[in-house]
Amino acid sequence: MIKVSVMYPNTAGARFDHAYYRDTHMPLVKARMGDHCKSYTVDRGLAGGAPGSAPTYVAMCHIYCDSTESFQAGFGPHMQEILADIPNYTDLAPVIQISQIVVG
Amino acid sequence: MIKVSVMYPNTAGARFDHAYYRDTHMPLVKARMGDHCKSYTVDRGLAGGAPGSAPTYVAMCHIYCDSTESFQAGFGPHMQEILADIPNYTDLAPVIQISQIVVG
Repeated sequence: MIKVSVMYPNTAGARFDHAYYRDTHMPLVKARMGDHCKSYTVDRGLAGGAPGSAPTYVAMCHIYCDSTESFQAGFGPHMQEILADIPNYTDLAPVIQISQIVVG
Repeated sequence: MIKVSVMYPNTAGARFDHAYYRDTHMPLVKARMGDHCKSYTVDRGLAGGAPGSAPTYVAMCHIYCDSTESFQAGFGPHMQEILADIPNYTDLAPVIQISQIVVG
């Protein structure tokens, strides 16, 4: 099992619509990926590790898939539509990472 | 519910013992935090978003707690012992973030 983490850097002056992300964008991703997306989680950054510090990421999602190949099979055919929805909630470019789930 | 994400930057030449992290360090964190830690996950970075790219983080853990206060109550009294164990598996300094769980 792998997870694809999509992390939006907390940048001064940037725009991020958490409600749209939760209610519209991520359900779109799940709908298009179908069973290739086993589940997903959404986080909203609250704080950094040091007292009073800001979070590194304003929001993150983690998409759980059986394998990198399964993610690509589910996401690839709908990539254009999904990426075209990003400006509807943010002007940030996310950091993307694929991880093996060691403890799930 | 919140999660505390501890993310180790993938730095050239750095050391990270994934087995020690999974088998010794994270069980120590859970044992010391007790019920303040509802659960935790561990990831190992595989790749970045672009084909052939490296992951931003070599490893991450996410610690699930009822609240920031609960995390602090569980982690604070054992912080010295837990931080002292870090050199046993890495020479990296982690990025730490507290997030609200929007979709869990």
